[in-house]
Amino acid sequence: MRATTIHAPYDMRVENVPEPVVQLPTDAVVRVLRACICGSDLWAYRGEAARQPGQRIGHEFLGVVEETGSEVGTVRRGDLVVAPFMWSDGVCDYCREGLTTSCEHGGFWGSVGYDGGQGEAVRVPFADGTLVQLPKEAVSDDHLLSALLTLSDVLGTGHHAALGAGARPGATVAVVGDGAVGLCAVLAAKRLGAERIIALGRHEVRTDIARRFGATDVVAERGDAAVEAVRELTRGQGAHAVVEAVGTEQSMRTAVNITRDGGAIGFVGVPHGSGTGLDLGVMFDRNIALRGGVAPVRAYIPDLLPDVLDGTIDPSPVFDLTVGIEGVPDGYKAMDERTALKVLVTNGR
Amino acid sequence: MRATTIHAPYDMRVENVPEPVVQLPTDAVVRVLRACICGSDLWAYRGEAARQPGQRIGHEFLGVVEETGSEVGTVRRGDLVVAPFMWSDGVCDYCREGLTTSCEHGGFWGSVGYDGGQGEAVRVPFADGTLVQLPKEAVSDDHLLSALLTLSDVLGTGHHAALGAGARPGATVAVVGDGAVGLCAVLAAKRLGAERIIALGRHEVRTDIARRFGATDVVAERGDAAVEAVRELTRGQGAHAVVEAVGTEQSMRTAVNITRDGGAIGFVGVPHGSGTGLDLGVMFDRNIALRGGVAPVRAYIPDLLPDVLDGTIDPSPVFDLTVGIEGVPDGYKAMDERTALKVLVTNGR
Repeated sequence: MRATTIHAPYDMRVENVPEPVVQLPTDAVVRVLRACICGSDLWAYRGEAARQPGQRIGHEFLGVVEETGSEVGTVRRGDLVVAPFMWSDGVCDYCREGLTTSCEHGGFWGSVGYDGGQGEAVRVPFADGTLVQLPKEAVSDDHLLSALLTLSDVLGTGHHAALGAGARPGATVAVVGDGAVGLCAVLAAKRLGAERIIALGRHEVRTDIARRFGATDVVAERGDAAVEAVRELTRGQGAHAVVEAVGTEQSMRTAVNITRDGGAIGFVGVPHGSGTGLDLGVMFDRNIALRGGVAPVRAYIPDLLPDVLDGTIDPSPVFDLTVGIEGVPDGYKAMDERTALKVLVTNGR
Repeated sequence: MRATTIHAPYDMRVENVPEPVVQLPTDAVVRVLRACICGSDLWAYRGEAARQPGQRIGHEFLGVVEETGSEVGTVRRGDLVVAPFMWSDGVCDYCREGLTTSCEHGGFWGSVGYDGGQGEAVRVPFADGTLVQLPKEAVSDDHLLSALLTLSDVLGTGHHAALGAGARPGATVAVVGDGAVGLCAVLAAKRLGAERIIALGRHEVRTDIARRFGATDVVAERGDAAVEAVRELTRGQGAHAVVEAVGTEQSMRTAVNITRDGGAIGFVGVPHGSGTGLDLGVMFDRNIALRGGVAPVRAYIPDLLPDVLDGTIDPSPVFDLTVGIEGVPDGYKAMDERTALKVLVTNGR
């Protein structure tokens, strides 16, 4: 079968790899229908995150179950399923509490010895804990499949950010970051009842999606000017709830400075730098909270899925380029050069 | 009248100063019965926080109302009152939300042009927003007066830390810092129903108070050994709720490392250093939240007062040295040299 592998920075290949098989009784094998490329995949692409030559890559996929181990009970051959961006056993303390990302037996797709999502098929550890069944009818609905694919990462991550920030009815939410996660955080904030949503971003294509997703205001400025603009929109006070969906020192600094006293920052941008963007003195004086981290999207899927299925929310506009499996390297290039927001990978039909 | 002033690092004096008078219709003048010295006063004492020569000092006091401005309606001459460590107008957005420390007209005792609590009397701005009435009978109860004085800062600050950390029934709480605030956080965590409370501290006098306040375990180790000890006590997982009541990089690092995945740090130690103790990468991977800051103790007094009055909680053991007003400089010396935990200042009777 064909799968994407990474050999060195900027050296993505689509290669023949062995077909996955059930190795453990808790495994399943899933034939991938849709996958995508994540902003966080670009760190490996750019060499900022180390990979061994030939490692598989991709952590967002949905597909059809092809084979299951003897202990798998919740999904079976032929089921349409979506996988979150980490696998988890579903039974440990953390999984039962909904913090599936801290699962004692959890792991990441594409780590050494494990399959990645940007390929034709994947061996899924702990299939019962990891996979979530989707209605089979969705297989024939291209648009819905794209929307459902966001449950594997960006929608749940945006939701985690919005929750961490404290998005709620009546609140003013500001979102730092106009990538797919930031846009999904706008959608999630709207879904959680936020009254006003300020999207910070300067790329009109993206801020247009933000408006579609529920942003009431767009701030195109950066740095101090952005802080000033948000304060002007909020009677000088700042936003109750701020999403940080970038992960740089500059973006964290902006997030702190646009948060209202007593408010919270929901952070889901993987931190780059060592927290020097976080002015603890300001956070202390103004009682600004910081919540978030790697999103336990597996735990959010049952909550978000019905709203995606019935169209209450449609995150599919985050995909603006579609490639087949052989086109994955081009997809990386497009995202790296920011000519694409998020790349969808179609497999099979 | 006599009041404490600071002239240079380690140069505290008790001097004659003008009697305070009502200057604005919202002012009150309070004759101080009890005041105390705060760990945070030591920063000024040690020259780590700048002061102008002759500035008043002290931000914790209770006493009897002597005079009120024409617009003061909630307290009157003869009332026994306690003041929180900041004044606040009681009517702005933030005050109405309970974040009195962000009051638009708030301020700190002892700032230039304002009285400090370590003196015989204080002009209180925004008396209606700031002061809280206490039962007059308490005037004749020395022990109760000491307990009530903690409402001005350390008890409310410990409560803020415990809330920020998420202390709740069934939770394991760990407290970093064995000063008066840390000890009050133990008391507050117990009051909030924590099942297990781990106090980190190596001073036996203090950890004995922690045990009296509800600590179930004491960890005397520091640094990595302390982290190891807390993990051993918590099945390797760490504490659900961690109070950081010191404010150094080392203490914040310890706090992060003893927090259970998905848990929270309630931080009330005024940050020293710029957040380099805060490993955002670890907090991200493990979904550790950070909440807290300068405690809006004014908002907590109505909640905590009944429990102090009926003896449900007795924070008075944090005071281990009593001086008169003329002994305040000695009190600073004792706290600086750590021969005293917290110094009570008695005035008048």
